[in-house]
Amino acid sequence: MAAVPTDNGNGQATGKVTPPRGYSDADMARRVAWLAEQTGHQLPDFALEEPATFKGLTENQLGYLGLPMSIAGPLRIDGSYAKGDFFVPLCTLEGTLSLSMTRGFYLTYLAGGITSRHIKQQLSRSPVFIFETLEEAYNFLPWVDAHYEQIKAAAESTTSHGKLLRMEKHPIHNRVLMEFNYDTAEAAGQNMVTMASDAACRWIIDNFKTSRPFRYLVESNFCCDKNPAHKTIMHGRGHHVICSFKVPERLLRKLLRVSVDDIVRCITDKHLGSQMAGVVGLNLHTSNALAALYLALGQDVACVAENCVGIATYERQGDSLYATLSMPSITVGTIGGATRLKQQRSNLELLNCTGDKSSRKLAEIICASALALEISLAGAIVSNEFALAHAKFGR
Amino acid sequence: MAAVPTDNGNGQATGKVTPPRGYSDADMARRVAWLAEQTGHQLPDFALEEPATFKGLTENQLGYLGLPMSIAGPLRIDGSYAKGDFFVPLCTLEGTLSLSMTRGFYLTYLAGGITSRHIKQQLSRSPVFIFETLEEAYNFLPWVDAHYEQIKAAAESTTSHGKLLRMEKHPIHNRVLMEFNYDTAEAAGQNMVTMASDAACRWIIDNFKTSRPFRYLVESNFCCDKNPAHKTIMHGRGHHVICSFKVPERLLRKLLRVSVDDIVRCITDKHLGSQMAGVVGLNLHTSNALAALYLALGQDVACVAENCVGIATYERQGDSLYATLSMPSITVGTIGGATRLKQQRSNLELLNCTGDKSSRKLAEIICASALALEISLAGAIVSNEFALAHAKFGR
Amino acid sequence: MAAVPTDNGNGQATGKVTPPRGYSDADMARRVAWLAEQTGHQLPDFALEEPATFKGLTENQLGYLGLPMSIAGPLRIDGSYAKGDFFVPLCTLEGTLSLSMTRGFYLTYLAGGITSRHIKQQLSRSPVFIFETLEEAYNFLPWVDAHYEQIKAAAESTTSHGKLLRMEKHPIHNRVLMEFNYDTAEAAGQNMVTMASDAACRWIIDNFKTSRPFRYLVESNFCCDKNPAHKTIMHGRGHHVICSFKVPERLLRKLLRVSVDDIVRCITDKHLGSQMAGVVGLNLHTSNALAALYLALGQDVACVAENCVGIATYERQGDSLYATLSMPSITVGTIGGATRLKQQRSNLELLNCTGDKSSRKLAEIICASALALEISLAGAIVSNEFALAHAKFGR
Amino acid sequence: MAAVPTDNGNGQATGKVTPPRGYSDADMARRVAWLAEQTGHQLPDFALEEPATFKGLTENQLGYLGLPMSIAGPLRIDGSYAKGDFFVPLCTLEGTLSLSMTRGFYLTYLAGGITSRHIKQQLSRSPVFIFETLEEAYNFLPWVDAHYEQIKAAAESTTSHGKLLRMEKHPIHNRVLMEFNYDTAEAAGQNMVTMASDAACRWIIDNFKTSRPFRYLVESNFCCDKNPAHKTIMHGRGHHVICSFKVPERLLRKLLRVSVDDIVRCITDKHLGSQMAGVVGLNLHTSNALAALYLALGQDVACVAENCVGIATYERQGDSLYATLSMPSITVGTIGGATRLKQQRSNLELLNCTGDKSSRKLAEIICASALALEISLAGAIVSNEFALAHAKFGR
Repeated sequence: MAAVPTDNGNGQATGKVTPPRGYSDADMARRVAWLAEQTGHQLPDFALEEPATFKGLTENQLGYLGLPMSIAGPLRIDGSYAKGDFFVPLCTLEGTLSLSMTRGFYLTYLAGGITSRHIKQQLSRSPVFIFETLEEAYNFLPWVDAHYEQIKAAAESTTSHGKLLRMEKHPIHNRVLMEFNYDTAEAAGQNMVTMASDAACRWIIDNFKTSRPFRYLVESNFCCDKNPAHKTIMHGRGHHVICSFKVPERLLRKLLRVSVDDIVRCITDKHLGSQMAGVVGLNLHTSNALAALYLALGQDVACVAENCVGIATYERQGDSLYATLSMPSITVGTIGGATRLKQQRSNLELLNCTGDKSSRKLAEIICASALALEISLAGAIVSNEFALAHAKFGR
Repeated sequence: MAAVPTDNGNGQATGKVTPPRGYSDADMARRVAWLAEQTGHQLPDFALEEPATFKGLTENQLGYLGLPMSIAGPLRIDGSYAKGDFFVPLCTLEGTLSLSMTRGFYLTYLAGGITSRHIKQQLSRSPVFIFETLEEAYNFLPWVDAHYEQIKAAAESTTSHGKLLRMEKHPIHNRVLMEFNYDTAEAAGQNMVTMASDAACRWIIDNFKTSRPFRYLVESNFCCDKNPAHKTIMHGRGHHVICSFKVPERLLRKLLRVSVDDIVRCITDKHLGSQMAGVVGLNLHTSNALAALYLALGQDVACVAENCVGIATYERQGDSLYATLSMPSITVGTIGGATRLKQQRSNLELLNCTGDKSSRKLAEIICASALALEISLAGAIVSNEFALAHAKFGR
Repeated sequence: MAAVPTDNGNGQATGKVTPPRGYSDADMARRVAWLAEQTGHQLPDFALEEPATFKGLTENQLGYLGLPMSIAGPLRIDGSYAKGDFFVPLCTLEGTLSLSMTRGFYLTYLAGGITSRHIKQQLSRSPVFIFETLEEAYNFLPWVDAHYEQIKAAAESTTSHGKLLRMEKHPIHNRVLMEFNYDTAEAAGQNMVTMASDAACRWIIDNFKTSRPFRYLVESNFCCDKNPAHKTIMHGRGHHVICSFKVPERLLRKLLRVSVDDIVRCITDKHLGSQMAGVVGLNLHTSNALAALYLALGQDVACVAENCVGIATYERQGDSLYATLSMPSITVGTIGGATRLKQQRSNLELLNCTGDKSSRKLAEIICASALALEISLAGAIVSNEFALAHAKFGR
Repeated sequence: MAAVPTDNGNGQATGKVTPPRGYSDADMARRVAWLAEQTGHQLPDFALEEPATFKGLTENQLGYLGLPMSIAGPLRIDGSYAKGDFFVPLCTLEGTLSLSMTRGFYLTYLAGGITSRHIKQQLSRSPVFIFETLEEAYNFLPWVDAHYEQIKAAAESTTSHGKLLRMEKHPIHNRVLMEFNYDTAEAAGQNMVTMASDAACRWIIDNFKTSRPFRYLVESNFCCDKNPAHKTIMHGRGHHVICSFKVPERLLRKLLRVSVDDIVRCITDKHLGSQMAGVVGLNLHTSNALAALYLALGQDVACVAENCVGIATYERQGDSLYATLSMPSITVGTIGGATRLKQQRSNLELLNCTGDKSSRKLAEIICASALALEISLAGAIVSNEFALAHAKFGR
């Protein structure tokens, strides 16, 4: 797919490419029909799941909470795995978020869509081995390397899908922090990598001979599961995806009422604020996009804390704006966990995120959605400021 | 309330202080009855909200998502605002989370409860003013101070509840990052502080005389709204709460099967992992507790990204473990946003979090819940390792 | 002083504004004469200090180390305290550093000089008070505020020059981190603030009544003395100075063989590298400038670790480059420590950095020197890359 | 070497293992004689180097600066490369530093010495390649891997000693940050890796075929040369060394007047202060040790900014204190740069740091010296506090 603007030259698409609006029951019904028309996807009737359905997902259930589900789309992507137009389900109680994402989708659609590249997928666990002395920790290092195959076999004995890809060793003090990196296929895989790593650790503790007792913790927090961390920016965890789009100034002005320079200038100022504050990641609010999609798609919403560390940039390229969002950590899957629940599964099906490589496809859709929401907010912040500055100095 | 252990000496409470278990409809009904008995709170029947109800909270609604709501409790707190026993509603799809929090509640209950102190409540916005030269930015600094009262009046003209408490100035390059700190009373207040700060900025831009145009962005990201940041650890945002409890080794061993030294040692290792990875905050998974409570209580779940930066410690005090969790940023409220929805409101009522100072009370309950979940996970990680080490070296 | 370019239109100054070059004894003599001509400053003959002179500065002296002292200048500054042309002594063994700084001085001289603003001067110490419980720490907070005057009196009883400006309190767990901020006048003041803060702590520990023992450390590392820290970027320590200059593209191309866009683009890429790596501060190598000036001027070179966290930016303004360097932490003085030694004192005199407000003047000269070195290196990196790209694509 | 305490049971060594004290010429002469007696090393007479000697190290020399050189020792090390007793030359103007390091050496000597392990030695440069689009950057990734041997050959063509060990690729936006890691043998190697990496980049830019121009910067700052960075904690740069020692409580009390628990407690509080402030690294003042040794040994003192990020820990082991210092970045060498100067070379010879693997030996001596200085300061801070608390509560 070439990144060719698909607007009619006036910043408008030819067909109907945003959902019908409105808050009445009839409006909602029109949207359901519109979605079916666009995608052939028939939304299942809403019905509460039986308590027994939640076994393994929650305990001590007392009742239910009903959340509204919204729709935004089409989102056009030319990615490594996600290719075509997608209608994205959202679950949010943050006013304007659905509209803002819709606006971002529309802008990037007219600009020819979002390009996406899936860099890698690796989920890690990071045990720590604690020795009495530095010397023992030091001697442990070559031993571990020499027994990689056995350790790998122990880890993989616990899982039919997970593969151990790599094992890192970080000696510190009289300890060795390890990081086991796995391919978790279509699963998000947090439990899979815990069990596999624990089996690996048990094999190690049974086989490494040392004169004095040593111990381990199966998780040292070095992998940063559900925690925001600088390491994640550098090393990634889960899916690592980068998205970009290029939009002509004409469209930017029409749809967001801002110029290329406005946006470039804005991100400079926002990044300065982030840097002064020591924010991990450099983006406006990917946490909003992540939370809304994760809820709708059966992902673990607490992972937003870990996954929100993306870096966005905007640069001028000729008469266009070139925007990117690099997300090194998207810990999602299309099997396991809450993805089995009826509505969540239906939403994954709406995105055709089932089967082989579907977790990679899902990660690309999530990153592209976050990028679209970023540019929409950037436009909103800038246009406000631009209007004011104009009022004062343009008279 | 004195922090006196309330167990019978065998690590058991006299009455029934954990919810009945099970996954059947009947089990759920028994829990509803148990809760009513404990608290007098009658859970409302579940019924979907009309689409029009979500106006201001979501757009382009397409349908609904039904999530299970769980219960944990009692959580005993002796806090600045929260005092007594609380039954905490959770909304999670993370298996074992409800049980683990229940275990943490039970442990701290038997230990005499959790002590909480509410340090402060301040929500900020951080505009940036951008000048052409350093000299102009420098001259701006005293002018702003000299006009604090007018700026405050402009800000407060937009809100009936919000009060401007403080205004900070951070000069950098030819810019001045500002931070407006507000008391937002019972509201989380993110929109309130945006509107107030924008009014303040407009007043400034209309009144500061300079020979050349300057501009502003109402939000520079320096306040770190919905972003994880080092600044938040130091300065806080929203409610700043610290919780602690002290538990005798006897109870720890009985309920978590670990010793005081095990836990102290564990946190040392976990903090080392976090530090090596550059995690912002030092905790195991407060993001899990925050996400589960925020969903159930009508809070913005994307704020988990900002609020997850708490610091936990465990130290030995005589024969006891002294545990603390400092959470500098809990951006919650009891009015506004999704707190008006039926089930969310019912859950706030279950916690008696309505009326004056109820947002402070809510923040203390959240911090105490997170601390209880932390100790439970710490115990789980350690007891696994301890058992293994024992098997190998204790023969 | 207006920032008017002072070149002859061909990117050359009218007079001789860089030092004579060369490595022979005669070359060195010519530089000494040139300096005397420019400034009237007669360099003292080199002679070793007697061991007794170093009392208080070093112990167990075994001999001497002779380092070369270089000169760069004139550096033209229009600052809050530094005004005019300065000839800057350097002590470095890093090849090209002196030449590169000379080039930066020459560029900014022709561009009309560097503008400097002294934001503030505050040196801090940060004791921590450790209580048994959270409640005691919490109760300590209002007590400290209520006794500020007595605490201030205790602190200031130890010093004739230092003034306590502010006292901050950061409660965490069962502890309170405090930060005492002082005006240290012309001294760098690290020892001054230690003694004053220790006296303040002793007063507190003698007067705060609590039922159980508590303790303190006079330094918790929260002030970040001699450590690189994110906090320093936000809060500063020592002198906080910002410098800027504006140079027409014509001069940039003539002297550095780069364009405005080259430099702007370069800093974007460098900052990206820094952010990905989690560098504290965003600059190329202020550590080089700081080390060379600190050695020559009797400052503590270990402070480079703390002071190197400045942030540089480059932006296009019309046909010019606008460059800034914000240094929030320059912990220098003109009295005390090694400033009393003969050569170091002579070097301070060369800069007219003696007497009232001379430490502020010195801090501005240091920041301006660092900025000049930054732009020179940026030009070097970019021109290399530019030449290569041109060779490949410009054929 | 076994870590067996070598004291006489009263916390005293049998022989004379600290330098004679005093500030007179005669005292200095006695130290020179003592050193010759201990080591056979005859200090060369001090004489200024000719200006021409400094060619390549400094330009525009104007004169000289004379600094005092001190001695501390013996420092007993059982390391990977450093084995035996060392007498360490220092160059500092920080009062008490020499004495404090001497005290640390004495304590660890009596405790049986410091154990050291050299983890790795790798110096990196990190170019960035900038493409027009994400797609081009993505396509660059496998191409680079496929041409590793040619790139390695290009890099190594510029150096007779340097070897390219590894090449990392970090895609971000439409760019690829690379990191070339080299073995630099006995050289610190900053210039070596610049030239090698530039040659590698030129080969790449000449050989990678793409439809549109791309560019590179030979250094993106991602390697963090002379900048303090979180990445360095995780990945290291230069020599990575870990040191430890174990000291019985009896000796601690005798020499530092503190208990094991005092020290352990102290480091907890200091680390808390560092964490709250966002310090990179967790130590008290390794910058002080680094600056003093680097000056005396011909190393680049600006590197202190990069190398100061070590992490120290103290833990109780039975009746002893087990202390460690992990320094992931010590960018030193024994050939090249200022190591050729007369006094600096003499100091390297005093440490027997010449010839094969001498840079590794030097790095271990530096880390061990820093650890000894850390424990001495920790003792000083704690004993002050302990005395006060005792005065108040021990009556």
